[in-house]
Amino acid sequence: MTRDISALVFDAYGTLFDVHSVTRRADTLYPGRGAALSAAWRTKQLEYSWLRTLMDRYEDFDRVTRASLEWALESLGLPVEDAACATLIAEYRRLEPFPEVRDALLRLAQTRPLAILSNGHPQMLEALVDHNAMRPLFRGGILSVDAVKRFKPEPSVYRIAEEALGMPRACVGFVSSNGWDAAGAKSFGFRVYWLNRSGAPQEKLGAPPDAVLATLADLPAALAR
Amino acid sequence: MTRDISALVFDAYGTLFDVHSVTRRADTLYPGRGAALSAAWRTKQLEYSWLRTLMDRYEDFDRVTRASLEWALESLGLPVEDAACATLIAEYRRLEPFPEVRDALLRLAQTRPLAILSNGHPQMLEALVDHNAMRPLFRGGILSVDAVKRFKPEPSVYRIAEEALGMPRACVGFVSSNGWDAAGAKSFGFRVYWLNRSGAPQEKLGAPPDAVLATLADLPAALAR
Repeated sequence: MTRDISALVFDAYGTLFDVHSVTRRADTLYPGRGAALSAAWRTKQLEYSWLRTLMDRYEDFDRVTRASLEWALESLGLPVEDAACATLIAEYRRLEPFPEVRDALLRLAQTRPLAILSNGHPQMLEALVDHNAMRPLFRGGILSVDAVKRFKPEPSVYRIAEEALGMPRACVGFVSSNGWDAAGAKSFGFRVYWLNRSGAPQEKLGAPPDAVLATLADLPAALAR
Repeated sequence: MTRDISALVFDAYGTLFDVHSVTRRADTLYPGRGAALSAAWRTKQLEYSWLRTLMDRYEDFDRVTRASLEWALESLGLPVEDAACATLIAEYRRLEPFPEVRDALLRLAQTRPLAILSNGHPQMLEALVDHNAMRPLFRGGILSVDAVKRFKPEPSVYRIAEEALGMPRACVGFVSSNGWDAAGAKSFGFRVYWLNRSGAPQEKLGAPPDAVLATLADLPAALAR
């Protein structure tokens, strides 16, 4: 019963905010290579978050983001220069929300507490939310995995949101565009809405989402069903 | 002191055996798409091994290999048919060793016990080793992560080899072509030889290898230094 959803928790990077909005800046720094750099960077950033958790070698997402950028530059044969790296990493504090996000969150915030649960370091996340003037929308909290020093999709991460909201996990709706994050949240016990903007195949991880949405604008109707 | 290395442990897939030797068969089944399918399949196979370990949802590598193949086919818009999938998965039991592997292992086996430590399910691994008539080379054992129901690079996996060999980890040389596996083994405490056949950038995971080799034929000389 979706009426039982008492709060909504959102992934940040790739779900509310477009990580590939760094492409333009990357293309200015490395003409013609912005899209390739952005793609390689994001892939490696996720890999490093998974691998460091598995290896028991957590470091915060700012550092993971920097290390993965350096790897991505090297893999494309581009120079690794401090100033350019700092410029690109600063973009993570100014990512653009996807077009429908602001309106959808405003509608949803009238019905239930909303929260963010993200791999991002608290300062990265808060800067990003403030840059987009979205803080009033998240009265459920802006929650970072840094509290447990593990990255998604470890169950301990999703527990942060369950505890912060003080609600049983079955009453929490979790929204992510990252199929593997949706699977992790479902495996933990949240009710999961997978936001599949790109029409990707569903991840085969034994924990399919409860519903699939094409855009965040579809979530109010999905919750009313 | 490399003279103190009392045993050598090898990763299997991508290190001794070329996972992309499935490309030819894939190209027969899906003309012109073999290389793209092989690349997408391998990437997703590793992702699923990491994600399932993080999610605490282990399933054996045969199943992970099947699930990732299905995802890769879907992502490329290719049909998912049982017979074709079975044919491709069967190739994992018949992968080809890289060209220099057999000779290098024969030389090394005269000096120290050799072992395999792999994500592969025991039956997959043994079939592969037997297909290539390599069993006599591995008197240190053919070891599978299945014993702990976790995948690399979790420390518990590398402990399987330490315990099977009955040697302190600092006396074990570990060889992998997978940069993230080399980092996991180094983080655990093995002496690590990263076999970088493709000239990839070194992974930035805080655990650099002790030595980098261009081919396995370079290992005897590296051990003698």
